[in-house]
Order: sequence, then C-alpha cells, then structure tokens
Amino acid sequence: MTQQHDIAGGAAQSGRYTPTDRSRIRRNHKRAVYDRATIHAIVDATPLCHIGYVIDGQPFVTPTFHWRDGDTLYWHGSSASRMLKAQKGGIPVCVTVTHFDGLVLARTAFDHTANFRTAILYGKAQAITGSAEKNAALHDMMDLYFPGRMAQLRENTAKELKATSVIRMEIEDAVAKVRNGPPGDDEDGLSNKDVWAGVLPRTETWGTPEPDEHLSSNIPVPVYPRFR
Amino acid sequence: MTQQHDIAGGAAQSGRYTPTDRSRIRRNHKRAVYDRATIHAIVDATPLCHIGYVIDGQPFVTPTFHWRDGDTLYWHGSSASRMLKAQKGGIPVCVTVTHFDGLVLARTAFDHTANFRTAILYGKAQAITGSAEKNAALHDMMDLYFPGRMAQLRENTAKELKATSVIRMEIEDAVAKVRNGPPGDDEDGLSNKDVWAGVLPRTETWGTPEPDEHLSSNIPVPVYPRFR
Ligand SMILES: Cc1cc2nc3c(=O)[nH]c(=O)nc-3n(C[C@H](O)[C@H](O)[C@H](O)COP(=O)(O)OP(=O)(O)OC[C@H]3O[C@@H](n4cnc5c(N)ncnc54)[C@H](O)[C@@H]3O)c2cc1C
Ligand SMILES: Cc1cc2nc3c(=O)[nH]c(=O)nc-3n(C[C@H](O)[C@H](O)[C@H](O)COP(=O)(O)OP(=O)(O)OC[C@H]3O[C@@H](n4cnc5c(N)ncnc54)[C@H](O)[C@@H]3O)c2cc1C
Ligand code: HEM
Ligand code: HEM
Repeated sequence: MTQQHDIAGGAAQSGRYTPTDRSRIRRNHKRAVYDRATIHAIVDATPLCHIGYVIDGQPFVTPTFHWRDGDTLYWHGSSASRMLKAQKGGIPVCVTVTHFDGLVLARTAFDHTANFRTAILYGKAQAITGSAEKNAALHDMMDLYFPGRMAQLRENTAKELKATSVIRMEIEDAVAKVRNGPPGDDEDGLSNKDVWAGVLPRTETWGTPEPDEHLSSNIPVPVYPRFR
Repeated sequence: MTQQHDIAGGAAQSGRYTPTDRSRIRRNHKRAVYDRATIHAIVDATPLCHIGYVIDGQPFVTPTFHWRDGDTLYWHGSSASRMLKAQKGGIPVCVTVTHFDGLVLARTAFDHTANFRTAILYGKAQAITGSAEKNAALHDMMDLYFPGRMAQLRENTAKELKATSVIRMEIEDAVAKVRNGPPGDDEDGLSNKDVWAGVLPRTETWGTPEPDEHLSSNIPVPVYPRFR
C-alpha cells in the first residue's frame, strides 16, 4: 500500500514524540523510533489497527480501521457498539499498528526473530458529537480510503449518521519499533555451516478485484492509490 | 499459510466455547462463531497475535508470536520484558488474531465494510517456571514453526533459557467473527448503477527467501509447511 498524505494536506509533521514512561522502549532500544514522520508513515501504510481499552479491569483488543489527520487518529463504528460506547467517555486507549515483514531464521534457535515495523500510539478516545462534524470526518475517511468515490455515491443520511459513532484520539505519545535485515548470528551461530539461514519475507498484497454480480458490465475497476 | 495441527497430535478439539458476558458478540451476531475448530483454525493460520493487558489502568497492545496446544496458548520473550513480567502474575489478557481478507465497496458509503476472520481469546497469563518446561515449550514452538529445524541447531543453553520467559494461557472463553462475500447493498444502494462495487481482496504471502550472506552455496532452502 502506498503511503497516504495528511488529510489537511497542510503543514508537514515534523519533530519527534517525547518518550514517556509508558511509551519508552526499554530493551532493544536501538530499534526505537520517536520520529513523527516515521511513526506516521507506519500508521498510514495500512488501514488496520488494534485498539486496546479496559472495561471494569478487563482488557479488550478490537481490530478496527483508522485514519489520521496530523496528530489526530480517528475510527468509526456503530453507536451501539460496546467498544465505542466505552470509549466515548475519554478513556485511555492504546492503538497498535503492525506490519509483519518476515521471519528471520538464524543458526541458533535463540536468535530467530522477525522483521517488522510497528507503531504504538497512546491517547484518550473522544466521541465526535454533532451530525455535521461526524459527516465531515466520515467524508475524510472515504476521501482517504477511496479518493473521488464519495462523489459517485449519495450523501449519508441523518439516520445513517445517527447510527454511527466517530471517535477521535489526540496522539499524546507514540513510538515505533523497526527491525529489518538478515539474522544477527554471533560467532557461535556462524560456526554452524550446515543449516539454512536468512529471511522469509512476508507481504500483504491486493488480489484481483471481484466485481459485484449486480454490476453493469461497462464500469471499469477504479484505482484507489492507497490500495493499488 | 496452511493450517497447523495440534502439537500433541492428540484428541481433536471439538465442541464450542460457552459465550460469556465478555466474549458474546452483541451486534451482527450472525457473524459470531463459538465453534472450537473454527476458532482454532483462525488462530493457527498466522503466527501473529495482538496481546492486550493492563498495567496501572493503562491498556497496552503488544504484537507477539503465539503457538497453541489444544486449549492452551503460548508466547515467549525476554525475562526482562515489561509485558512478560507483568503477565507472570496471572493477569487477565485478551489475545486477538486478525486476518484482514479484503475491502468491500458498496453503493452507499454506509455499507462499505471489510471481509475478515478474527478470533478473540480470553484468559490469564501464567509464566512457565522451570528450565526444562520452558525448553520443552520452546522446542514445541520451533517444531511448529519450522518442523525438523531444531535438529540442525545446537540445544538451547542454560543462559538462553534463563533470559527467556514463556507464558501460557488457558483459553477460558473465545469467539470468532467472520465476514466474507460481496457487498450487501440494499435496494437503495442497488439503484445506483454507475459506481463500481465489489471486493478488493487482500492476502498475506511469503516472498522469495533471502539467504544470509554467510551461507554456504550448496544449502537448499528448506520448506516449512506452515510458511509455504
Ligand atoms: C510480528 C511481530 C512478532 C513479535 N513476536 C514477539 C515474540 O514472539 N516475543 C516477544 O517478546 N516479542 C515479540 N515481538 C516484539 C514485541 O512487539 C515487543 O516489542 C517486545 O515483546 C518487547 O515488549 P516489552 O513490553 O517487553 O518492551 P518494553 O521495552 O518493556 O516496552 C516499553 C514500551 O515500549 C514500547 N514498545 C514495546 N514494543 C513495541 C513495539 N513492537 N512497537 C512499538 N513500541 C513498542 C511501548 O510503548 C511499550 O509500552 C514481535 C513483534 C512483531 C511486530
Ligand atoms: C480488518 C477489520 C477492520 C474493522 N474495522 C472496523 C471499523 O472500522 N469499525 C468498526 O466498528 N468495526 C470494525 N471492525 C470490526 C470490529 O473488530 C468489531 O467486531 C466491531 O467494532 C464490534 O465491536 P464491539 O465491541 O462493538 O462489539 P460487541 O458485539 O459489543 O462486542 C462484544 C464482544 O464480542 C466479541 N467481538 C467483537 N468484535 C469481535 C471480532 N472482530 N472478532 C471476534 N470477537 C469479537 C468480543 O468478545 C467482544 O468483547 C473491523 C474488523 C476487522 C477484522
Ligand atoms: C471507507 C469506508 C468505510 C469502510 C472501509 C468501513 C468499514 C467498516 C467495517 C469493517 C465495519 C465493521 C463491520 C462488522 O463489524 O462486521 C464497519 C462498521 C460500521 N460502519 Fe463503516 N466503513 C466505512 C464507511 C462508513 C460510513 C461512511 C458510515 C456512516 C455513514 C459507516 C457506518 C458504520 C456503522 C454504523 C458500522 C457498525 C455496523 C454494525 O456493527 O452494526 N461506515 N465499517
Ligand atoms: C520459532 C522460533 C522463534 C521465533 C520466530 C522468535 C521470534 C522472536 C521475536 C519476533 C522476538 C522479538 C524481538 C524484538 O523485540 O525485536 C523475540 C524475542 C525473544 N526471543 Fe524469540 N523467537 C524464536 C525462538 C526463540 C527461542 C528458542 C528462544 C530461547 C531459547 C528465544 C528467546 C527470545 C528472547 C530472550 C527474546 C527477547 C529478546 C529481547 O527483547 O532482548 N526465542 N523472539
């Protein structure tokens, strides 16, 4: 998936997030990245995130689509959703975005690892109230995911907007962790000359579009840059 | 990735998990699956899960590799890991396994959705104490991920085992949610004949193995069934 641009198309995001007690990577800290642009690129490179939150002491992790505008992350769903109801009140959430890029096979079991790019964002979830604001946010989502598509569809109805919650989270602190490259065998490992070692790369790809059966035959498949 | 088999190779897992207050899917419940075999197949079809846990009221979501034996889920990492230290004490965790199978483009914005298979497992994390038990569990991990490989590597050392935590979670309750197929446009949507509608399928694939530079030239790339 190609990298998207800020919705606002405005000021580039620069600088870095200040490491905090909850966000700072303690071990393997050479893999820690607090740079805003790198973190945003990891977040924007997939629509999927995993949102962690707590209800009565019980943790929940819900896979959800997100979108981003500067330092604000958004997601949406049903107004009746337990997750979104719980999050309305401004509870702390942890949003994790993961790209699993490969398995790394070393010459000792201990040194096996993975290549990956991950971002973890912390903040408080806030419901967007007001039908017009919700609609504007959902238009942003459509425009980011499928540029130009909303113009081909009818406007969202009042009933649809009522059924929909949109959540906004100001990113308070954030961190990325990146590992890539070959196995890091030490000398002990390298002395084993008989075993295959290297990387089994893993990628996510888009398959051939599957047109709906009700489709008129002459409508071409649109190309959405983010999902090419 | 092909589906793995139970480590034990023993009794097939049958029956279903009993829905509980935390696991029961409330909306879209036609997509809910409590059947053990289906849930296990979703869990086994990728090594990656997202583990949710709480420290001092703050939720964390950590991407981690898991493996499964019957109704027990396992993961591993550093003995110094904050996540694994926190989990040692038997705290409640939520483990989510996600397969994002495609974007579903409907004829109204509201009806856009995704195809997916997800499983959410609940339980308490417990550290495996005892070097021999840890080593046995790590051998299970190696054998599941890379059958036959451990025999080509030296045994894990006492020092390595000391540096490693292995966590076990009995699955107390679990649920899967599955959505597939074309957009579910209603009549209102179908009246729009001018827009493309259908599914943009998404898959994870393994790329060409990348041999390590130190590799002798005559070692063939092994084929590990799970990661074919
Ligand atoms: C595909 C994949 C598979 C993985 N498999 C395993 C595994 O099997 N075992 C294992 O131990 N680890 C695994 N990891 C790494 C795991 O995500 C953690 O980085 C690691 O467990 C250290 O976590 P910690 O809480 O001990 O780190 P700490 O350094 O104690 O965590 C402190 C803070 O650092 C930040 N942080 C920690 N991990 C990450 C991260 N991945 N991305 C961004 N910020 C982070 C968070 O803000 C966290 O609160 C995997 C990662 C990926 C992407
Ligand atoms: C790739 C992908 C993208 C998604 N994007 C969105 C999105 O943008 N907006 C959105 O609202 N939803 C999205 N979902 C669905 C989301 O994961 C939840 O199913 C949905 O939000 C309902 O959650 P809830 O807590 O309101 O459900 P409830 O029915 O209130 O949840 C009750 C219980 O049902 C179970 N449950 C809920 N969801 C799942 C699940 N996915 N898998 C297994 N068990 C589950 C859990 O045990 C949960 O505690 C997406 C899912 C996937 C896989
Ligand atoms: C980029 C476009 C969109 C995508 C990819 C998308 C995707 C999704 C997904 C994956 C779900 C979860 C479905 C499930 O739990 O099975 C969902 C739920 C929902 N979406 Fe969207 N959506 C989009 C746009 C919209 C818009 C514009 C609206 C409102 C006008 C909307 C309203 C809802 C509602 C109300 C739900 C909850 C449905 C339920 O659980 O009953 N979505 N969406
Ligand atoms: C299937 C084989 C294995 C795979 C795919 C694997 C994968 C991983 C991954 C992805 C991490 C996280 C690395 C990071 O945070 O950057 C990790 C950490 C770790 N693994 Fe493994 N592992 C495997 C086998 C083992 C074995 C057999 C041992 C012990 C004998 C072990 C001990 C550790 C330790 C101690 C860490 C923590 C490293 C640190 O954070 O400092 N692993 N593993």
